[in-house]
Amino acid sequence: MLKLTIDQIIALFENDQIDEITKKINLLHPGDAAQIINELPAEYQVKAFNQLSSELASDVINDLHDELREDVLETIQQNRLVEIMDEMDSDEATDIAAELDEHQLKDVLQKIDKEDSEEIKQLLIYDEDTAGGIMQKEIITVNKEMNRAEMIDHIRDNYDDVEKLYYIFVTDEENKLIGILEASKLLLCKSEMKALDIMDKDVISAPVEMDQEEVAGIFRKYDIYILPVIDKENHLLGRITVDDIIDVIDEEASEDVYKMVGLENEDKVFTSPLSSVRKRLPWLTLNLFTALLVSSVVGVFEATIARLSFLAVLMPIVAGLGGNSGTQTLTVITRGIALGELTLHNTYRAIVKEITVGIINGLLIGSVAMLIAYLFKGNILLGAVLGISMVCNMFIAGLVGSSIPVVMKTLKIDPALASSVIITMLTDIGGFASFLGLATLLL
Amino acid sequence: MLKLTIDQIIALFENDQIDEITKKINLLHPGDAAQIINELPAEYQVKAFNQLSSELASDVINDLHDELREDVLETIQQNRLVEIMDEMDSDEATDIAAELDEHQLKDVLQKIDKEDSEEIKQLLIYDEDTAGGIMQKEIITVNKEMNRAEMIDHIRDNYDDVEKLYYIFVTDEENKLIGILEASKLLLCKSEMKALDIMDKDVISAPVEMDQEEVAGIFRKYDIYILPVIDKENHLLGRITVDDIIDVIDEEASEDVYKMVGLENEDKVFTSPLSSVRKRLPWLTLNLFTALLVSSVVGVFEATIARLSFLAVLMPIVAGLGGNSGTQTLTVITRGIALGELTLHNTYRAIVKEITVGIINGLLIGSVAMLIAYLFKGNILLGAVLGISMVCNMFIAGLVGSSIPVVMKTLKIDPALASSVIITMLTDIGGFASFLGLATLLL
Repeated sequence: MLKLTIDQIIALFENDQIDEITKKINLLHPGDAAQIINELPAEYQVKAFNQLSSELASDVINDLHDELREDVLETIQQNRLVEIMDEMDSDEATDIAAELDEHQLKDVLQKIDKEDSEEIKQLLIYDEDTAGGIMQKEIITVNKEMNRAEMIDHIRDNYDDVEKLYYIFVTDEENKLIGILEASKLLLCKSEMKALDIMDKDVISAPVEMDQEEVAGIFRKYDIYILPVIDKENHLLGRITVDDIIDVIDEEASEDVYKMVGLENEDKVFTSPLSSVRKRLPWLTLNLFTALLVSSVVGVFEATIARLSFLAVLMPIVAGLGGNSGTQTLTVITRGIALGELTLHNTYRAIVKEITVGIINGLLIGSVAMLIAYLFKGNILLGAVLGISMVCNMFIAGLVGSSIPVVMKTLKIDPALASSVIITMLTDIGGFASFLGLATLLL
Repeated sequence: MLKLTIDQIIALFENDQIDEITKKINLLHPGDAAQIINELPAEYQVKAFNQLSSELASDVINDLHDELREDVLETIQQNRLVEIMDEMDSDEATDIAAELDEHQLKDVLQKIDKEDSEEIKQLLIYDEDTAGGIMQKEIITVNKEMNRAEMIDHIRDNYDDVEKLYYIFVTDEENKLIGILEASKLLLCKSEMKALDIMDKDVISAPVEMDQEEVAGIFRKYDIYILPVIDKENHLLGRITVDDIIDVIDEEASEDVYKMVGLENEDKVFTSPLSSVRKRLPWLTLNLFTALLVSSVVGVFEATIARLSFLAVLMPIVAGLGGNSGTQTLTVITRGIALGELTLHNTYRAIVKEITVGIINGLLIGSVAMLIAYLFKGNILLGAVLGISMVCNMFIAGLVGSSIPVVMKTLKIDPALASSVIITMLTDIGGFASFLGLATLLL
């Protein structure tokens, strides 16, 4: 589908054939244009974007990588920005508006189409992670008393504003949402039918303040493409389309993985190094303190290590396997919570399961480790210490890896924050303490 | 939206009011019914499913957890299974068919509607992770020469088969796909118009053998709801709907996180403990050997540890921070690859960035660690050893965390397999070797 390659564009830039670039790049589908610009070497990216027509640019700009979009918005001429925003749907224009500085925003809102400007101001009020923050105001609404011909006329008059017309919404006199109507149903129905007769009354909708992750859950559960957004009195405010939900799902999936390893959302592949350093430092500092804590537990047994230095050689085995085993449990549980598989009614069963798995794996891997230690060191007691401490630590791994995220969820703290650093700290302490403790007692 | 709570159902089961359950549960939306059944205590799940009408059951069965669906399919009566499958779309019926044993499958295919049976047989051929494996055969196709009235008649005749009619497909005499037509466009166009005149010729489609992750990439890039699937000669074979793509995206996101910690896809919250043990054992065994390798590196320095036992106390700090720092880099890079942000044209930049971040963080955290070691042990040289080895290890973390997944991608191995166990092994070795090595030289 891509009719133009990166290498072709680079060659054109190198030969200064800007007109040729303008011609070719404007023939692309917005998805392809965004991909090409995202992949170009840094020095050509903004230049290439500047060759896009306002219409194409309006579909491309929100698909650029965050850093690149920032670069574009910093250098863009105001007239061009106004032209681009005039072409956009209200939800996308609002996303851009939210990235402008106060001064830039004020100027732009004055110059763009007045109706658009009002819509953006209304949408800017909502938190960007809520239904209101991702909805668009472009909708087609018909009154329940309209007949087929009236509805078709009404749709024709408003069609230009709305992309992807799949449903139209049916409201009563007070703009309260009472039904939805598939365009295809309208196509097939008889001419005397009113909206009220053919609409689907069983409407699924989202309150405007609902968190976007919950909204994604509604799309997932009911297999819908478009979701109306309402206020507390059931007034229709806007609609959310499934393509935006795919972005939400990607974002939330990244967020969950990121949180587990202590990363911030905005820390992407091409975030500047200094900005990544700043974002990762607090967590690494926390990690330094958990490591010091672990180290102080080992310190308790320094006398034993001084006597039996080979314990220091073997102790990473117990801690390492516990850590990885705990991270596995943590991943299964947090993913189960994210996908809604784990609920209040079945957590106990899940925790018992993970502990069981930990103990069984501990017994199996511990036996092998015991055997290896015996074969290499010829000391059956050392083997026993290694094996038993492994069982203990894998039990700990199953317990903390499953119960910590669940407890956090119950306390309404995001369970994905139960990051690997906490679990690893606990399995490190569990591993070192059980291994060195048993060794101090038995060897 | 949920008009029935879990607790109400449990109470009805406890009082043996099965008729009441049947009545209430069949009023639910399929999404709600599936959620309730998934959350019920294990003893009531299959019983509750058995109270669903065939129609509702056909919409619910694919949303049950894997283990529960297996339980249902093992105990279901053949007549009921046939009734349920007759109600299903071809893609969903095929998913069920793929889970039946050979004997059960043969019987069912004989008894269900003949056309459905043919479609299922055709779909079973495709790998379940490809476009063919997720497409459905229910489509409405019009010939390019049809006029508006003919098209509407044709749609009316075939409408019952197809849920979510959003596009109709336009083909030529040889059933080759030449355009798509939004239902809403047909609603608004003039009566003399032919399909050819109003269709969108710029069709985005997927070849039947395309991997489902790539298919999801098409939906993501072009913001579409429905995608036609074609063979090599451009014959129209079926369509993929965006609700199935959301399942694919969830599945692939889970898969990526899972692979990073060495988990298999089928290892879910409620997979039986023994089955989870079996799935996790190979990876933990691999982990045992990487841990032994790490241990043997520490073994090289056993004499130093015997002399200076406090080194054993401090060495987990260097290894631990390197491991967590490497896992952060690994996560940023693999997520960037999964979302298509990282491509051949920009990997070098990404690796340099991660190494830079590693070194800077190493310098900062290393300085703090140096200071702490000096304050507690009063030994400036020990502090220096700790600090320098931390810089080395965070450099290693940045290097291996970024380059290993990239190299794997270049070699066409799934980059998500660059699991944390490999990265942790390398940062463990890097941490212990640099810390103990420097200590042996300097202290």
